[in-house]
Amino acid sequence: MLICSSLDEVKRREAAFRFIATTVNHEGRSSLYDLSGLAGGFPVKKSDLPFLETYSGPAIFELSLQKEGKKHLGGEKVAAFNRTSAAILATILALVKHGEEVLHYLPELPSHPSIPRSAKLQGASYAEFDNIGDFQLSEKTSLVVITGSTMDHQVIPLDDFEKIIQISHKKQIPVLVDDASGARIRTVIYNQPRALDMGADLVVTSTDKLMNGPRAGLMAGKTELINQIKDKSHQFGLEAQPPIVAGIVRALEAFNPQKLLNSMDRRDKLSIMVGNVLSGVKKTPTGFMISASNLKKEIIPHELDGSLSDRECATLMAMVLLKEHHIITIPALGMPGVSTTIRFDLSAADAENLDDTQIVHAIKDSIKRVREM
Amino acid sequence: MLICSSLDEVKRREAAFRFIATTVNHEGRSSLYDLSGLAGGFPVKKSDLPFLETYSGPAIFELSLQKEGKKHLGGEKVAAFNRTSAAILATILALVKHGEEVLHYLPELPSHPSIPRSAKLQGASYAEFDNIGDFQLSEKTSLVVITGSTMDHQVIPLDDFEKIIQISHKKQIPVLVDDASGARIRTVIYNQPRALDMGADLVVTSTDKLMNGPRAGLMAGKTELINQIKDKSHQFGLEAQPPIVAGIVRALEAFNPQKLLNSMDRRDKLSIMVGNVLSGVKKTPTGFMISASNLKKEIIPHELDGSLSDRECATLMAMVLLKEHHIITIPALGMPGVSTTIRFDLSAADAENLDDTQIVHAIKDSIKRVREM
Repeated sequence: MLICSSLDEVKRREAAFRFIATTVNHEGRSSLYDLSGLAGGFPVKKSDLPFLETYSGPAIFELSLQKEGKKHLGGEKVAAFNRTSAAILATILALVKHGEEVLHYLPELPSHPSIPRSAKLQGASYAEFDNIGDFQLSEKTSLVVITGSTMDHQVIPLDDFEKIIQISHKKQIPVLVDDASGARIRTVIYNQPRALDMGADLVVTSTDKLMNGPRAGLMAGKTELINQIKDKSHQFGLEAQPPIVAGIVRALEAFNPQKLLNSMDRRDKLSIMVGNVLSGVKKTPTGFMISASNLKKEIIPHELDGSLSDRECATLMAMVLLKEHHIITIPALGMPGVSTTIRFDLSAADAENLDDTQIVHAIKDSIKRVREM
Repeated sequence: MLICSSLDEVKRREAAFRFIATTVNHEGRSSLYDLSGLAGGFPVKKSDLPFLETYSGPAIFELSLQKEGKKHLGGEKVAAFNRTSAAILATILALVKHGEEVLHYLPELPSHPSIPRSAKLQGASYAEFDNIGDFQLSEKTSLVVITGSTMDHQVIPLDDFEKIIQISHKKQIPVLVDDASGARIRTVIYNQPRALDMGADLVVTSTDKLMNGPRAGLMAGKTELINQIKDKSHQFGLEAQPPIVAGIVRALEAFNPQKLLNSMDRRDKLSIMVGNVLSGVKKTPTGFMISASNLKKEIIPHELDGSLSDRECATLMAMVLLKEHHIITIPALGMPGVSTTIRFDLSAADAENLDDTQIVHAIKDSIKRVREM
């Protein structure tokens, strides 16, 4: 086994960082193609930098955060967190007590690990569902989480969304929508309403997902709840720091839904071309993806099945794409336990610097190389 | 009465923001002097900005972080966290199990709340001591924390430091030193060795305390422990994000212990000079402060006592310091209900841009103007 624990994944991630640093130093930033869809931007202006050095700068950006955050997500009040996972931890610590229960409804199991982990840390029980028929509150339920769109961009049906909110509110249980990517995918691509406009009490989104912002969690919702969650976040150091808040503000100001829509045309064309190279290529809202299990089928002869895990296959493929073709995808650089699906995001800024045949060639060549290993 | 409610304070704060924004826009950042001691630095260079992306930024700055972090703290490996509180949480989650025990030795009780809070969250017991005679490991102890220097800058005696490490290591229990400000106060001012050079396994420091970096936690220590703690930090979103890492790197590069020593000398001299202008001036570890009640005694003739509250006096003084002398202090910009003590932090980066006579003149002139009102 190549990957036995999350420690091995920390090492894999560090190796990828070292490669990127060397490449950028020798060949410049333009020699890399970040198609991860997570190439978080930090679009602060040079003229913002001096402000970030005063006690007052953050306060000024905080006012813009309220304005731009509410424009993006709706709600009464906004708060920014170091990561969406940190926002979820702060929420569970603030709203759920030891011995209570978190229920989680999502389009497709399993959940992002941050939700069950935070519940466990707080000593709360946790259950997750992707079938509306199974969803049932108990006496202990004190928080309901809805995932708007999964890591693989599966989107929740609007009917289910409404039903979960209705069921929860009948018992006065607050609903948090984990709309990490959903705050844009659901609304821009699927024309669904914003989570708070659907009646949710809280929503959190990742400002690096399908928008050019820093990796951070932006939450909006009811003032009273946001205040409780902010308080917890300050206790454990979970809130976004001033430079990150400035980055979020500038990214929200620059956000343009039309760019997301444009990348869909290219996706349709390119996913057919890649489909000729390997089977099981799936479209995503703004690109295409190859699941680890499909990749494995393509790479490993049936009689050798078991010699490599899905995760190992995806990691190898992503590392070859990085080292041989300078294409950055999530399994090469993601945190331990990251999704093993290799996604090519055509809404990423760097996607404009590669043409379709280059992308197809890189995938074809990388499969060949992984097979040879 | 000038300040009848917190709404008046909100207006005061907004007026101060507007003044600062206008001043920076018209006269540049260098026309302002932030002596609040709360202006976390963000000394990234303009040329750093294009690299500050989630996936390629870390690759570049992570390498420099290792180099500069080890130079500052020693140790085998370095990790950066969103806050020192977040670093402590990650450490306790990684090294302490439910039912185990955290022991904390510090120069003076009580502890910063982040340590007992994190222990409680993990379901571990916690005890704190400031008397070496009381310190005793139990069968359940799995982490020992030493605070190098308290929030009030009380420093641990070197003998106690050594004994705690010796006692803990005899039982193979790892020692984390919370050297938030101590990593500089203990070493630069008190000539103590760095925590890791004393034999500690881990040390964490706040990069905004007595150095011009962002609010963040910088940890160093044994590779194996750092890896475990980093792993936990990624799970809950506790790690510093790339722009913050860049800010830490640039602040470490610029850190000069001599500047800190200079600001202590300057404090001694300047607090005497200011003492000649008004009575009740008190030294702080890196500057001096004037309480609102002392200020009021100085400003208001005895027979008019009652015409202005302490808060109104301090607010007026801080606003005059800001508008007439461009000196930023906390009572001008703090949230409603903020401390009414006017602090002048001479370790603040901007303190170098004002000489002693300018500061004394600004205080003298502001008192005169407030008196005239």
